[in-house]
Amino acid sequence: MATSKNIKAEALSILANMTLAEKVGQMAQISIDMVCKGVDTPPTSTIELDMDKLRDAIVKYHVGSILNSPNTRARSTGWWNNAVEAMQKVAMEETRVKIPIIYGLDQIHGATYTAGATMFPQEIALAASFNPSHARKMGEITAYETRASNVPWNFSPVLDLGSDPRFPRQYEGFGEDPYVGSVFGSELIKGYEGDDNDIANPNKLAACMKHFLGYSVPYSGKDRTPAFIPMTTLLEYHVPAFQAAVDAGVHTVMINSGIINNEPVHASYDLLTKLLREEMGFEGMIVTDWEDINKLYNRDRLAINIKEAIKLGINAGIDMSMIPFDYVEFCTLLVELVNEGQVSMDRIDDAVTCILVVKLKLDLFNTPNTYAKDYPQFGSKEFRQASYDAAADAITLLKNEDNILPLKKNAKILLAGPNVVSKRALNGGWTFSWQGEKIEEFASEYHNILTAMQAKFGKENIVYVPGVSYSDATEYATEHPDCFDEAVAAAKDVDYVVLCLGENSYCEKPGDLDDLYLNDLQTDLAKEILKTGKKVILVLSEGRPRVISKISPKMDAIVQTYLPGLFGADALADILAGEVNPSGKLPYTYPEYPNSLVPYYHKRADEQENTDSAYNYKGDYNYEYPFGYGLSYTNFEYSNAKINATEQTLKSDAEIILTVDVTNKGNVEGKEIVQLYSSDLYASLIPDVKRLRRFEKINLKAGETKTVEFRLTQNDLSFINMDNKRIVEPGDFEFQIGASSADIKSTILFTIK
Amino acid sequence: MATSKNIKAEALSILANMTLAEKVGQMAQISIDMVCKGVDTPPTSTIELDMDKLRDAIVKYHVGSILNSPNTRARSTGWWNNAVEAMQKVAMEETRVKIPIIYGLDQIHGATYTAGATMFPQEIALAASFNPSHARKMGEITAYETRASNVPWNFSPVLDLGSDPRFPRQYEGFGEDPYVGSVFGSELIKGYEGDDNDIANPNKLAACMKHFLGYSVPYSGKDRTPAFIPMTTLLEYHVPAFQAAVDAGVHTVMINSGIINNEPVHASYDLLTKLLREEMGFEGMIVTDWEDINKLYNRDRLAINIKEAIKLGINAGIDMSMIPFDYVEFCTLLVELVNEGQVSMDRIDDAVTCILVVKLKLDLFNTPNTYAKDYPQFGSKEFRQASYDAAADAITLLKNEDNILPLKKNAKILLAGPNVVSKRALNGGWTFSWQGEKIEEFASEYHNILTAMQAKFGKENIVYVPGVSYSDATEYATEHPDCFDEAVAAAKDVDYVVLCLGENSYCEKPGDLDDLYLNDLQTDLAKEILKTGKKVILVLSEGRPRVISKISPKMDAIVQTYLPGLFGADALADILAGEVNPSGKLPYTYPEYPNSLVPYYHKRADEQENTDSAYNYKGDYNYEYPFGYGLSYTNFEYSNAKINATEQTLKSDAEIILTVDVTNKGNVEGKEIVQLYSSDLYASLIPDVKRLRRFEKINLKAGETKTVEFRLTQNDLSFINMDNKRIVEPGDFEFQIGASSADIKSTILFTIK
Repeated sequence: MATSKNIKAEALSILANMTLAEKVGQMAQISIDMVCKGVDTPPTSTIELDMDKLRDAIVKYHVGSILNSPNTRARSTGWWNNAVEAMQKVAMEETRVKIPIIYGLDQIHGATYTAGATMFPQEIALAASFNPSHARKMGEITAYETRASNVPWNFSPVLDLGSDPRFPRQYEGFGEDPYVGSVFGSELIKGYEGDDNDIANPNKLAACMKHFLGYSVPYSGKDRTPAFIPMTTLLEYHVPAFQAAVDAGVHTVMINSGIINNEPVHASYDLLTKLLREEMGFEGMIVTDWEDINKLYNRDRLAINIKEAIKLGINAGIDMSMIPFDYVEFCTLLVELVNEGQVSMDRIDDAVTCILVVKLKLDLFNTPNTYAKDYPQFGSKEFRQASYDAAADAITLLKNEDNILPLKKNAKILLAGPNVVSKRALNGGWTFSWQGEKIEEFASEYHNILTAMQAKFGKENIVYVPGVSYSDATEYATEHPDCFDEAVAAAKDVDYVVLCLGENSYCEKPGDLDDLYLNDLQTDLAKEILKTGKKVILVLSEGRPRVISKISPKMDAIVQTYLPGLFGADALADILAGEVNPSGKLPYTYPEYPNSLVPYYHKRADEQENTDSAYNYKGDYNYEYPFGYGLSYTNFEYSNAKINATEQTLKSDAEIILTVDVTNKGNVEGKEIVQLYSSDLYASLIPDVKRLRRFEKINLKAGETKTVEFRLTQNDLSFINMDNKRIVEPGDFEFQIGASSADIKSTILFTIK
Repeated sequence: MATSKNIKAEALSILANMTLAEKVGQMAQISIDMVCKGVDTPPTSTIELDMDKLRDAIVKYHVGSILNSPNTRARSTGWWNNAVEAMQKVAMEETRVKIPIIYGLDQIHGATYTAGATMFPQEIALAASFNPSHARKMGEITAYETRASNVPWNFSPVLDLGSDPRFPRQYEGFGEDPYVGSVFGSELIKGYEGDDNDIANPNKLAACMKHFLGYSVPYSGKDRTPAFIPMTTLLEYHVPAFQAAVDAGVHTVMINSGIINNEPVHASYDLLTKLLREEMGFEGMIVTDWEDINKLYNRDRLAINIKEAIKLGINAGIDMSMIPFDYVEFCTLLVELVNEGQVSMDRIDDAVTCILVVKLKLDLFNTPNTYAKDYPQFGSKEFRQASYDAAADAITLLKNEDNILPLKKNAKILLAGPNVVSKRALNGGWTFSWQGEKIEEFASEYHNILTAMQAKFGKENIVYVPGVSYSDATEYATEHPDCFDEAVAAAKDVDYVVLCLGENSYCEKPGDLDDLYLNDLQTDLAKEILKTGKKVILVLSEGRPRVISKISPKMDAIVQTYLPGLFGADALADILAGEVNPSGKLPYTYPEYPNSLVPYYHKRADEQENTDSAYNYKGDYNYEYPFGYGLSYTNFEYSNAKINATEQTLKSDAEIILTVDVTNKGNVEGKEIVQLYSSDLYASLIPDVKRLRRFEKINLKAGETKTVEFRLTQNDLSFINMDNKRIVEPGDFEFQIGASSADIKSTILFTIK
C-alpha cells in the first residue's frame, strides 16, 4: 500500500508534465450518454460505446471521468467490464499523459446499475436496525459487486440529515439523528473503503459522501430548493455525519445542489473551502452534483453566463464538474478563465492533484480494470442472506393491539393494497434504474409480499384483491382503484386483512410531494376495510413517513418495513408468522399531521407548556410515533441504572460510564435497542430537549438479563455555541436511558463543574 | 407641540431626580389582573381595581405601565375611564416622582377591548383591498375610540411578514409582500399617530410596531417556535415594513417572542441594539411581549435563573418588560443587577429616558386622562360606514364560472356551513376578547351572513341548514355535524347553495394548526352538497388560507372574505347581489396543498424547469390562486405600456416612470388593482423571480380608460447582498405590469449601466 506522501509526490510529478488543457480535462466529468450510440429497448438493447465520441472526449478534450448508466438502466457485469475497459484503453493508450479515467456510479443500496446485484434495504432501513454492522456489510458487498462491474467509485453514502419527512430523498439517508448518521455513515464508508481505506484493494472502492451540506431540509420540502439553516444549526446537526466520514477517511465528496441561506452551495467558498477543507480537514476530491455549475447561471441567475458560473464554482473549491453534457464548453471556458487570470493556476493544480491522488490511490494506473470473473461471490447466497438479515433486523412493529401479531397459523388472510405485488414499493429508487421502475425486468426471481406470504402461510390461506394499484408509469404518485369494492367485500370472508400501503418508488425531484398524508385512494381503501370490523394489520412500505393519523387509531397492528430491499417481503412474512421477532426502531419521528415537521431534538419552545394565566396555551409538538420507538413480541424491563460519577471537572477526559440492566420478561427471545440520551439543562445556546448519545442493540433470550454499558466523555456533551465553536460548558446535565426518545426508563443527573 | 429636543431634555431632567428603584419601576409593565378584584361573570361583572394592590405596584414598586383587560373581555368606555383615571391619580398624587403610568391595549382591528367600538376588517383584509386609505382610516378611528377609553397606547400595527400560511397570526398582518406591508403599515401608523406624529393630540395615540423581527415564519408554522432566517432574508423581506414604520415615526416597538437562528430575539443585542437602534435608527421605546424575559429562563434554558434572564434582556436592549405578574421579583432583581454592575446605570438611564419621552410626547403629565364624553363620534354611523367600505373593498372574487355571480334576484338560496351564523368567523380574534369568542355578547346588533342575506334577498328566498356548526368552546377547531343530511337534502330544493366555510376565531398559540386543509367535516359537507349537482358558491371566512383543492374544482364560484369585520356580512351580501362589484385581490399566495408554502417572490430553484435529458424533472411550485389575484364582475384590458427610458446609469436619481392604459371592457363600473413587478435578471445574490414594486387601485366606469402611472427610482430595484448591504447593481431588469403576480400584461426591459 503506497503511503499518502508518496502518492501526493507521484500526483505532483504527473501534474508537472500536464498542459493546462490536460489539467482542465481531468476536472471534467461527463455522462456516458455523451459517448454512446444505439437504442435501449430491452431485451435487445443495442447501447454501446461510440468510439469516435469517446475519443473526442478523452483524447481531444482530455476528459478525466465518466458516470452513469445509459438510460439509467442496470447493465450486466460483462457490459460494464467491456465499456469501462474500452474507455481505459483509450485513456491510457491514446492520450499523451496516459491517465486512466475514473468511472463513477450511484450504487446506493447495493450495486444499483449492475444487473444481478444484491440490493439491500435502503439506508433509512439500515438505520432502523440500529445495528451498524448491516451498513458495514452493505458497503463490503456493494464494493465487491461494483468492482465486479469494473467501476471503482461509488457516489455513496448519503449523509444528509433526515429531519424533514417531506423530503423525497429522506429514505436515502440514516434518519433524523446526527449521531446515528455518524455511526452508520462511518461504517458504510469502512465497508466500501476497508478499515485502512486501502482502495487499491480490488474488493474496495472510493466512497463519496454526499451531499455536502444541508441538502435535505429545504424550506419547501422539495428537492433542490432553497434552505434556510443558520451556521450553528449546520454545525450542530448537519456536519457531524460528514465530519465522522472525513475522520473515517472517505476519499471524495459530492456537493449539495441546493441553496443555503440564499447562496448556492456550489458557489460557496465558505462552505467548500473554509469549512470543508480548512476546518473539517477534508483532503479528498470535491465533485459537483448533476449539472450544478451550469445552474449557477441558468437556474440561479447568480452568474451572467456559463463562463462566470464555472469561475464561481471552481474558485469556491470544486475539483471536478459533473458537467455532464457540454464538456467542450466547460473545457474551453475554463482554459480561458485561467489564461485571463480569473481562475488561478494554483486552484487548477490543487483540483487536479486531488483527482490524481484518488486515481493513484485506486491504483488505476496499474490496475485500470477489474473483471467479473474475479468476483465469484457476486450475487451469492451469502450476500443475499446479508440483505435478508438487514431487512429482518430493520422492520419495525409500531402497533400490536392485544398481541394480534404474530398471525395464527392457518388463518385466512386477505392481502390488499398497492404494495402487495409491488417490488418497486419494497425497494424504492436507485434499484436497477434511477426511479426504480424497471425492477421487474431485473428482479423477477424475488418475492413480492404476495408470493412471500403464500410461501409462508400457504396459498390456500391467502386471498389477494388489490383494491388500489399503482400505475405502470415511472411517475410514482399515480394510482387507481383496482377491484376496490371487491377488496372490501373479500375482507368479510377472512380472519385478518394485511393491508399493504405506502408509496411507489421514486427518487430525487420526481419524488417531490405536495401532501404528506397517505394518498387519498389508499386512505379510502383503509377506511372501507376498517368498516368491516375485521382485524386489520397495516403494513407500510414507504420512502418517508406518510401521515396515517386518519386510519391508524383503528388498526390492530402496524408494521413499518421502510424500503426493505429484495428480501423485504420474506423478512416481513417471517415477522408476521412469528419466526422472526421484530426489533427495528424508528430512525425518525413519525409525523401525526402534515405540519408535524419537528424532530425529536427540538427546543423547549416547540412544546411550550409553561405560560401562565389567561395565556396558558399549550404547544403541540405532536407525532404519531416518537424517534427510537418500536415494539417486540416480547417485553423488556430496565433496572439498576448507574453512573460511575455524578460530577466531573471541566476538561476532564475521564470516561463517563453508565450501565443498565435489561431483562427479557417475555416468553420469546428478542432484541432490544437501548438508548442513551442527554439533556443540557441550561446552556449559552438554547439547548435541545434531548439528544441521543449512544445506543446498543442486544439480544436476550426469554428471561435473560444483560448489563448494557455506555462509555462516553464530556466531549459527547459538547455543543456548537453562538460563535460557531464546539464547546463543553459547565453545568447540569441529565442522562436518560430509555427504550425510545419518549420512553425514558431512568434519569441520572450529571454535573460538569 | 413640544420639540423632540425639549422633550428629551425634560425627560433627562426627570430622570436626574429618580432613584434606581424608581427607574427600574418605570421599566416594569404589569397585567391589570395584578391590581384587580371581583368576579367576571357577565352581565354582572364585579371586576374592579384593588386599590391596595394598585398602591403596592405603583407607589411601593414604582411600576410605570399596566396593560390588558381583565379576563381579556372588552369593557365600557366608562369602565376604562374610571380604571385608568384611578391609576393615574395614584401615580401622580401618591408617588414621589409623580410620573403618570402608560396604559397599553391590543386594539388590533378597531378598539378590541372597548365595548361598542367599531371593529374593522383585520389587517389581512385591509391589505386585500390594496387601498391603503382603509388602513389610515382604521388607525384614525381606533385611535379615537381607544382614547375615548382613556388609553393612549396601542400594541398595533402588526408588521410581520405573512409568508407562511400555517401561522396562526397570519391574518393580523398585511400578507406576504414586504412592499404591501410597508405601505399599509405606514398608513396605519399615520392613522394612529397623525401625519406629524403629534401624539399629544388627544385624538391620537402611540402606536407599537410588532413583533420585531421575523416572528411569523417559524419552522413548525406554530406560534412562538424557532425560526431559521438568514440575515439576508431578514433584511430583504422582514425589515422593510419595520423600517417604513420607523421612518413614519412610530413611537414604540414590541419584540418577537420567538427564536431566530437559535437565539431568542429578546436576548439578541445584534437585533435589538445593533440592527434596530443603530442601523434602522429607531429612537422610541422597546417593550417585550408577554412574559418573554422570564422565558429566557423557564422556556429557553438560556439563563440559569430569572435574574440572569433579566440581565440578558435588558442588556440586549429591552426598555420595558411586560413581566406581567411578578413585578416584585423583576424590580428587586434588576436593582440588584445594577448594584452588582451586571447591568449598567447607563443602560437603565437609556431605557427610562425612552419611556419618559413617550409619556411626555403623549403629554400624560398634563393630560393624564381622556374621557368618553369628549369623543362624541365613538361608534358613530360614519365610523361604521368606514368599516363597511373597507370590507366591501377587500372581499375577493376567486372564481366565477359562467358569471354565476351576481346571484339572480328572487332565486332560492340555501345557506349552509358553520360560518353562516358565526360572527366569530367573520371577525377573528382580538374582537371584544382575546380569542374573539365573546363576540355575541358585544355585537348582537350586527348582521351575520344569514341575517344579511335575508335582508338583501328576502327571508322567503333564504333557507338555512348549517350541516356543520362550530362548538361554543373558546377552542377554535372544534366542530360537529349539525343537520348534515338535512343540509344536503335541502340543496335539492334551491337554485343556489351559498356554502360558508372556513375557520372559527382564534389568535396566537391557541390558533396553531396541524393541517392546512380545511377541516374534514366541512370538506365532507362540501363534497356531499356538490354531489347534488346544484350551483354552489363557496364563501370563505378564514384567518389564513386553508387548503380547498379537494373541493374547489367543482365550485361554481368562490368568494374570499378573509376576516371582514362587523360589516363583512353586509358587504358580502351586497357583492353576491351585484350591488357592489368585488375588487379585492389576494395579499398572499393561496396554497394548493399543505406543502405549498412558497410565496410568489421565491427563487427560480423553486420552479426548476431547466434540467436536461434524463433528469428533466419539473419542479412544482403550486398554488390554488396566485398573489395579487382577484376577479371582477367586469373585465379590464391593459394596453400601451410605456417607460420613459429603458436605461439609466448607476446612481442616477432620475425617476423611472411607467404608464399603462387600463380600460373597463365590461358593462358595469369596477375597480382594478394594477400591479408593477420587477425581475432582476442576474444579480450577485440569487434574485427572486419577481417582486412587487408599486400598485394602484383605480375605479373605471363601463367603457372608461385611465392611464396609470408608476414612479420609482433605481433604489426600488435594490436588494440586500451577501454582505447584508442594500445595493443597486448594474444589469438588466424586467418590469412587468399585470393584474396579478401570474397575469402579466406587459413586460419592459430596463438596464442600469
